[in-house]
Amino acid sequence: MKQWLFAAAAAAASVLVLNAQVQRPDEWKSEGVIYLNHSLNARLHPVPIQAVHLGDGFWTARRKVTTERSLPTLLDLLEEHGVVDNFRRLSGRPDLPRKGRISSDSDLYKWIEAASWALASNETSDSDKQKLRGDIESLASHILAAQEPNGYLDTYFVGDKTHLRFTDLVHSHEGYCLGHLIQAGIAYYRATGSRKLLDAGIRFADYVVDNFGPTKRPFVTGHPELEMALVELYRTTGQTKYLEFARYLFSGVEKDRLKLKDPDIRYMFSGKPFTSHTEFEGHAVRALYAASGATDYFTETGEPAYKRTLDLLWTDLTMRKMYITGGVGSRSAGESFGDAYELPAEQAYAETCAAVANVMWNFRLLNLTGDARYTDVLERALYNGVNSGMSLSGTLYCYRNPLASSGEKLRNPWYDTTCCPPNIERLFESLPGYFYATSRDGVYVNLYHNSELDWRLEDGTPFKLAQATSYPWAGDVKLTVTVPHPAGFTLYIRWPSWASSAGIQVNGQPISADKRGSYVPISRTWNSGDTVTLDFQMQPTVLVANPRVSDEYGRVALQRGPLVYALEQIDQNGVALSDIFYRSGTPIAIEARKDLLGGITILKVSGQAAEKPVEEEPLYEPLSNALNRAKRPVNLIFVPFYAIGNREPTPMEVWVPISKFDAGTISAAAVNLERHTETR
Amino acid sequence: MKQWLFAAAAAAASVLVLNAQVQRPDEWKSEGVIYLNHSLNARLHPVPIQAVHLGDGFWTARRKVTTERSLPTLLDLLEEHGVVDNFRRLSGRPDLPRKGRISSDSDLYKWIEAASWALASNETSDSDKQKLRGDIESLASHILAAQEPNGYLDTYFVGDKTHLRFTDLVHSHEGYCLGHLIQAGIAYYRATGSRKLLDAGIRFADYVVDNFGPTKRPFVTGHPELEMALVELYRTTGQTKYLEFARYLFSGVEKDRLKLKDPDIRYMFSGKPFTSHTEFEGHAVRALYAASGATDYFTETGEPAYKRTLDLLWTDLTMRKMYITGGVGSRSAGESFGDAYELPAEQAYAETCAAVANVMWNFRLLNLTGDARYTDVLERALYNGVNSGMSLSGTLYCYRNPLASSGEKLRNPWYDTTCCPPNIERLFESLPGYFYATSRDGVYVNLYHNSELDWRLEDGTPFKLAQATSYPWAGDVKLTVTVPHPAGFTLYIRWPSWASSAGIQVNGQPISADKRGSYVPISRTWNSGDTVTLDFQMQPTVLVANPRVSDEYGRVALQRGPLVYALEQIDQNGVALSDIFYRSGTPIAIEARKDLLGGITILKVSGQAAEKPVEEEPLYEPLSNALNRAKRPVNLIFVPFYAIGNREPTPMEVWVPISKFDAGTISAAAVNLERHTETR
Repeated sequence: MKQWLFAAAAAAASVLVLNAQVQRPDEWKSEGVIYLNHSLNARLHPVPIQAVHLGDGFWTARRKVTTERSLPTLLDLLEEHGVVDNFRRLSGRPDLPRKGRISSDSDLYKWIEAASWALASNETSDSDKQKLRGDIESLASHILAAQEPNGYLDTYFVGDKTHLRFTDLVHSHEGYCLGHLIQAGIAYYRATGSRKLLDAGIRFADYVVDNFGPTKRPFVTGHPELEMALVELYRTTGQTKYLEFARYLFSGVEKDRLKLKDPDIRYMFSGKPFTSHTEFEGHAVRALYAASGATDYFTETGEPAYKRTLDLLWTDLTMRKMYITGGVGSRSAGESFGDAYELPAEQAYAETCAAVANVMWNFRLLNLTGDARYTDVLERALYNGVNSGMSLSGTLYCYRNPLASSGEKLRNPWYDTTCCPPNIERLFESLPGYFYATSRDGVYVNLYHNSELDWRLEDGTPFKLAQATSYPWAGDVKLTVTVPHPAGFTLYIRWPSWASSAGIQVNGQPISADKRGSYVPISRTWNSGDTVTLDFQMQPTVLVANPRVSDEYGRVALQRGPLVYALEQIDQNGVALSDIFYRSGTPIAIEARKDLLGGITILKVSGQAAEKPVEEEPLYEPLSNALNRAKRPVNLIFVPFYAIGNREPTPMEVWVPISKFDAGTISAAAVNLERHTETR
Repeated sequence: MKQWLFAAAAAAASVLVLNAQVQRPDEWKSEGVIYLNHSLNARLHPVPIQAVHLGDGFWTARRKVTTERSLPTLLDLLEEHGVVDNFRRLSGRPDLPRKGRISSDSDLYKWIEAASWALASNETSDSDKQKLRGDIESLASHILAAQEPNGYLDTYFVGDKTHLRFTDLVHSHEGYCLGHLIQAGIAYYRATGSRKLLDAGIRFADYVVDNFGPTKRPFVTGHPELEMALVELYRTTGQTKYLEFARYLFSGVEKDRLKLKDPDIRYMFSGKPFTSHTEFEGHAVRALYAASGATDYFTETGEPAYKRTLDLLWTDLTMRKMYITGGVGSRSAGESFGDAYELPAEQAYAETCAAVANVMWNFRLLNLTGDARYTDVLERALYNGVNSGMSLSGTLYCYRNPLASSGEKLRNPWYDTTCCPPNIERLFESLPGYFYATSRDGVYVNLYHNSELDWRLEDGTPFKLAQATSYPWAGDVKLTVTVPHPAGFTLYIRWPSWASSAGIQVNGQPISADKRGSYVPISRTWNSGDTVTLDFQMQPTVLVANPRVSDEYGRVALQRGPLVYALEQIDQNGVALSDIFYRSGTPIAIEARKDLLGGITILKVSGQAAEKPVEEEPLYEPLSNALNRAKRPVNLIFVPFYAIGNREPTPMEVWVPISKFDAGTISAAAVNLERHTETR
């Protein structure tokens, strides 16, 4: 069992003395999406975005749209809705009205974070970089001009609302906006070396740290996010006070001083000791941001109680509360988690931000542990529950990502609370930083895509890894190593849990590996030109949910590779989705369709349709009537879930009812079957 | 097709000239729970409660507890929580604080209505009647003393809240409280002939009618209920102004003057023309009360648009939005209807009040049409979704009536909004009034129970009908006619839709009848001593829900007679409910258990249980894994749904997952089966 490095004395003394160190001037060039090179408990150290060159393929196409379409159109909308003007009005334009929700500053900060990661990306064109850098510099000028000399910066609590600052921490989002300011500043710093926004974040963070705390004014994160940002700020600056403040936030000691109510504590997933949580509840994004921040905190401190809580929560999420798409948050009411196994498909909330948070959290857990089960969840959420959140055009966004719909429009260009659009954009733009990591003993390959890693081993040896693949449409991967001299290290190859075989060969020689859902370690002395080839089994899988998930019992979902599939009404030749049933045991045909939905692979299978529309049948009736109902064969066409809703509004479903259940009553053959299976 | 009598000219002229007539002094003795003797469109005319003598049996036991335990303990709690003091403080006790919710007056009115129906009942003992009458007289004194000279009466909008009267009709519940005051007054009048409370209701109603209307101040029912009360007040007094005001409420013309918002209009199911509704939405109780009132209105006026709307709504309810228990309201958020087919079992709200409203509405539709499909729904809701709302002890009440639970306590003695307890009590106490009705051509038998009807045919001929039965535990019914002389009329015998055969005999001779779910008309000249015997098929039925109900797909529920059954963990010999599966095609044993839960019949069937706890299995996995999972035989014991939760808190479920679905992949036998069924 892994022994975590634990700053025990520090935890007891409330002063953390960790691995903090003075930053080298060019250290920003080494910093990944999260920067773990000095984090004692981190097994993996993500490479910087700049070290990864993505080739053509799935994510490159998606990111190109993000850079060229999503970022500029969203900035236009932020301008149009006054989100930038809110800053301008504090520096020379007092005539402008304050517009938007209380949290709107954070939407701009997230846009800047997204644009910053685009600046760090090798795939962004020089002209786009020039434009984006100009945009950020201009926005940063407005932001800096709006910041008060004492560091305070929130465009809502000004003028006649100044006296309300930090008086309603449950709802005010001031800590949330500060968190996103910090993260935007860090991203811009890591992309360019410019401390312009980073220092603004530091000034506001220092204001909070100086004025709040156990012996000062009380603080709580009404919407957790600041915790993650503070740990990252600690990692960026080496200043332990930010880590200490994160610990204070997680300590949950201010219930009495702030008169926090239990329903608010549940909703916020904050305000009581983080380590007292035993399950996910309340607002899904808040809860997953809190868990992400707590993972960051544990990665730095190793306080054992945090790991125990994180393990409990992860089990709760992945065994009881996560959609097959990696989406999270079952209820629209409160945008919240449901009870265990409460995972309704059509009523699902599954906010895009929650799926993004799920990726962020599992990325942190992966880097902490090197355990591929986290990469499995990360990949599931990324390809499905996150990816569905933005249209193929890059200009329409989901707030909800339900797993079934009767055809209502799911995506819009703008929401008054427009948290999701820049959130998905910052994830897509930072994505190269998720693909590879180093460890003391080697290199991890987390995700598959045409790409080249151009970085160094942790002993300093320059190192290149070229990856050629058709992923996610096919399971072939070829990795080619380039080193200046023969070098002994371990290449950790992720074998996704969905692949029943991986077909791993090193320089054409098969190697044995028997554990799917793990990193396969290949330790040897590597020479330039050495190859590792993979051949992941890509047969579609017919999946069922745990029988406790009442909404999905008796239904199946198709998955191929990392992609979850769905039926869209528009593809079913006029057969109503509500009349369609799945027949298991029938072969599934795979067909690449470059013409469709940006180029996808569809799945074709023969199913059944009710002769008489199901909606004309009674609401309740004897089982025997249902079993005797006539059905006719139909051909079903499945498309990837992420691509749904990109044509006309049309009903859709991931979980398809299977055509026949417990046929025990309808014939002797059925009874025999049941006997047969009973005695097996 | 039935031609409804329609006051067309009246509708056009906004003045209704109907069948109103001056009441005879003793007419109250003829008035049923609703009084339809002068309602031109009513096919059935319910008999007064006083005409029905219930013998021993299911409802007599339940009503005895209601009279002897529920009414006194609830009155104590209403006193304890200041609901009566709220009236006392307006007449000599200004020192008392105003307590309880804005709607609390209505809770007391409903208690008075319940106690009044108990006064009208032949089964209530003389001592209980004396006590209840004393209680009502005392309460009525406080209520009358609190009423203002102008008629206004609401204990919330007094003192410094006086100026707020009728300023927030969406939330104020003033019209709702008035409605329940009217209904309490009518019930007390119909039980005793006393106009004491009735006149108080009339005074307040006149205040509203005089001051509000299309050309006066605008009015809307934020919580519909007043509509029903006003039509009943019209029926009781013959005053058309109350019917006209009900029409004004249904006209929905005040959206602009009251600045009503669309979400509020949806939630209230009021504020737009009733006849513009096409489906149920919003708050379930509000919507069903509105539909009940609109049925009352249509029964009096025959305005065709109302019937069209009511038909649409009834289809929407019974084809898409009603639980198998007759419970209604899928969502806790807003206590509201869900989308079509959104009927989650564990998350169900299914408020007791909504099931009561479902009974009330279908009773009205039954009396309007004589169509047994409404009695089917009424009976389903009464025996299950309503009946579960009160503990067997009569002192604990459900607000929610979910169809599955993981063992949390569902019933409490008191709720701050304590609408459900007196609602279930008024229904139980008025229940004798639901059993029989007369029509121009005969007598209707709606429900089955040991009882004697002592009333008259509509031509004035005295008439008795004795009923002997073991219903709902067995399907035997014997009806015996007593008439002073041979009399020609039709006895309408309800054949419930759940009974596959009815075995009807007249004086021992079988008669043919082929339509279940209908009233079987037996027209003949009846002599004293003539008998009709029935033998309803009482084999348990294995029911499934429409495949569109995703939460219940692949599951079955058991029903026997009118009773829906459920599994309680406590009966399953230590097997976790979450591990239990149903095997269709296995025989179901029926066992009477006088010792259990007040005397019930249980159902026993052999099922299967997962060898390894289901909750330890993955959340998602390949279908083949699920199909190959080992199960062992277990014996399952089902109890009636209404009786659940009367021992210790224990998990419960109505819908049980069936053990095997679409076995197409697991063996050749399975594939053969599928082929077999395909070609049938």
